[in-house]
Amino acid sequence: MDRREAALLQAVDRLNEEMIDFAARLVAEPSTLGNEASVLQVMEQQMRDLGYPPRRVGVDPVALAGHPGFAPVPWDYQGRYNLAAVRPADGAGGKSALFNGHLDVVSEQPIEGWRRDPYCPEIEQGWLYGRGAGDMKAGVAAIVYALAAVDRAGLGLAAPVTLEVVIEEECSGNGALACLAAGYDAEAVLIPEPFGPTILTSQVGVCWFKVQVKGVPKHALDTGGGVNAIEKCYPLIAALRELERSLNAEPHPAFPGISHPFNFNLGVLKGGDWPSTVPAFAEFHGRLGFPPGLSYEDIRALVERALDQTAQHDPWLAAHRPSLEFYGFRSQGHQVPMELEALRLLGRCHQDLSGSPAAEFHSTATTDLRAFVHYGRGQATCFGPLAENIHASNERVNLQSVLHTARTYALFLSRWCGLVD
Amino acid sequence: MDRREAALLQAVDRLNEEMIDFAARLVAEPSTLGNEASVLQVMEQQMRDLGYPPRRVGVDPVALAGHPGFAPVPWDYQGRYNLAAVRPADGAGGKSALFNGHLDVVSEQPIEGWRRDPYCPEIEQGWLYGRGAGDMKAGVAAIVYALAAVDRAGLGLAAPVTLEVVIEEECSGNGALACLAAGYDAEAVLIPEPFGPTILTSQVGVCWFKVQVKGVPKHALDTGGGVNAIEKCYPLIAALRELERSLNAEPHPAFPGISHPFNFNLGVLKGGDWPSTVPAFAEFHGRLGFPPGLSYEDIRALVERALDQTAQHDPWLAAHRPSLEFYGFRSQGHQVPMELEALRLLGRCHQDLSGSPAAEFHSTATTDLRAFVHYGRGQATCFGPLAENIHASNERVNLQSVLHTARTYALFLSRWCGLVD
Repeated sequence: MDRREAALLQAVDRLNEEMIDFAARLVAEPSTLGNEASVLQVMEQQMRDLGYPPRRVGVDPVALAGHPGFAPVPWDYQGRYNLAAVRPADGAGGKSALFNGHLDVVSEQPIEGWRRDPYCPEIEQGWLYGRGAGDMKAGVAAIVYALAAVDRAGLGLAAPVTLEVVIEEECSGNGALACLAAGYDAEAVLIPEPFGPTILTSQVGVCWFKVQVKGVPKHALDTGGGVNAIEKCYPLIAALRELERSLNAEPHPAFPGISHPFNFNLGVLKGGDWPSTVPAFAEFHGRLGFPPGLSYEDIRALVERALDQTAQHDPWLAAHRPSLEFYGFRSQGHQVPMELEALRLLGRCHQDLSGSPAAEFHSTATTDLRAFVHYGRGQATCFGPLAENIHASNERVNLQSVLHTARTYALFLSRWCGLVD
Repeated sequence: MDRREAALLQAVDRLNEEMIDFAARLVAEPSTLGNEASVLQVMEQQMRDLGYPPRRVGVDPVALAGHPGFAPVPWDYQGRYNLAAVRPADGAGGKSALFNGHLDVVSEQPIEGWRRDPYCPEIEQGWLYGRGAGDMKAGVAAIVYALAAVDRAGLGLAAPVTLEVVIEEECSGNGALACLAAGYDAEAVLIPEPFGPTILTSQVGVCWFKVQVKGVPKHALDTGGGVNAIEKCYPLIAALRELERSLNAEPHPAFPGISHPFNFNLGVLKGGDWPSTVPAFAEFHGRLGFPPGLSYEDIRALVERALDQTAQHDPWLAAHRPSLEFYGFRSQGHQVPMELEALRLLGRCHQDLSGSPAAEFHSTATTDLRAFVHYGRGQATCFGPLAENIHASNERVNLQSVLHTARTYALFLSRWCGLVD
């Protein structure tokens, strides 16, 4: 580590308090799907204040409709956008980098499980608590300040760096995809997802879908004369569990040591509206993980077949086929070698700062890497803070790990883009 | 049938068009739980116009809390009421009668199943269509005009007749109970539920309850680390199906020829809020029919035991007991002899008008009879129009049967209360 890198890391350390404060301000803005306006305002102002005035990058479903990575969704994009800024190169000869983070969070419900207000960020014993603290507002703060540290240290970079924050990482990936389609890309793409200081080399594919089932409403005085739509969902759900079992039957080389990487989640079920009426309608929403190598069309066909075969064996369902709608995620999985130059360099930066090699990470979740790996030109991975209880109550992120993420990324910028005095 | 009865029946016939029009006007006012205001306005005006200005009878949960028939509910009674009017006797020596009907309806959902607007009543080939047409606004019109015919015919009655329309027949029975507690009762109680021209001698008990189940929310990347609250409902529901089977194991003497009178209905289930999050919460609402002779406390204990035993065999549920809340119906079943004087007389009135004896009817639903049979002083039964698709799409009531109901009831008034010139 040379004198300039030491100065850069000192700059990160000096910005630590400001970085944590910024992370907390992001957490204070609830930003579930469709409610991202206020967090985007905070973000936009911050980027401007730090000297990276962003462009608003909308998601245009019409323009993106033909993109193989675009996920059709039932909601709209009016007034919702991503933010992207390019810090231009101060010299030549380096390699470009792109930091990506998402600002959308999943619901804080059920609120009963929280020991504090999920949107009143609090720090206790080195952890920042709140919905989105880990997934992934602290990571967003880390990438912002890793870049800001370069400028605060009075240094320059020999390649452009893109800072990009997006919406809809949690449901479609359309935010990151829209930025990529708008031209934001780089030779290395880094995402501070809260998987800790590890190098992500594989992630599962994920698809979402909704199944709607009709029944026959009937007064409960004659339940036998009705068809209970809720109970008609059971065999369909069982068929998806069976598909899940078959996907996990053999260990998968992209997920060594993980016995069950491809999870089916029955995330939502609702049916009926009156205790004394046989429910005429029910629907459930599922999320299914699937292996890299299986295309979206493949998994879709498997889901369709599983439901179809089940329906065929039930006279009612055979005559009244459940409707199956794929919406949101249609993300294929991927695997890249740990030996990619950007990944190796990131690992070395981590090791130089921590003394230990960075572990390889295999993600059983999808991330916005999907856009960059499948449709971008760079080498892309995740490396980020340590969080607990993401998508659950009492989410928290370890502040020491947030600082380490920022330091590692700053060092990466120095070595990948190249420092310029 | 004497001259005066003939005049009375002629009066009913002359009022038929007005009666059907009134039934249609009631159907035109959607009156699901909590939304009864407009239909009550129409009803109140009509009763006033016909010379039976009603009293508004509220439901006071505090005053009724100690009544064994009162059903605690989670909603309130602000601005909601029943209507009751007593037509005083014009002479002495007759027996009093009470007509009861309910104005609340169940939801029209799912709307897709309807071939016409459920709240735009239409008549086609002798049937009136619409939500509540059968259950039981046409019946309400029939009792109103059976009584009005007495006055239109210029006749009097030798006993008082109470005309009472109530809310919450479909969920708690608290409307009828409040009227009874307010003193509205009689020696014969007649309810034109749409079971056709039959004499109801038995009905099942019914209880409602809600079961809430907790899970552990988790990102779908680790479904195994979460507990799916929706799927934890399954064994509990299965236990209730098993209880249902045991209740129906033997034929019940109060329900001859009905192989399965005591139905469990899984009416509502909802859980989860995000496809990629293991649902932390689910709840379902059930309705269970039970035999006369079994007290409400008995069936409640059976439901509790069924759920408890199931929970004991599931480590998660054993440690995180589902919450069980009984709300709405806590109606015991009953059986009365067909030989009761009022029932025999009603059957004879039907036979005199139709030429055939009235069949005995055993109801696998509960009705507002519960209040009168268990806590009132009179002989009570249902006799009403013929309807189809109650609690379902395309509900309709046969208009000829509505007229027959009104004629039969008018004749009953003549013979039970006694006519006075």
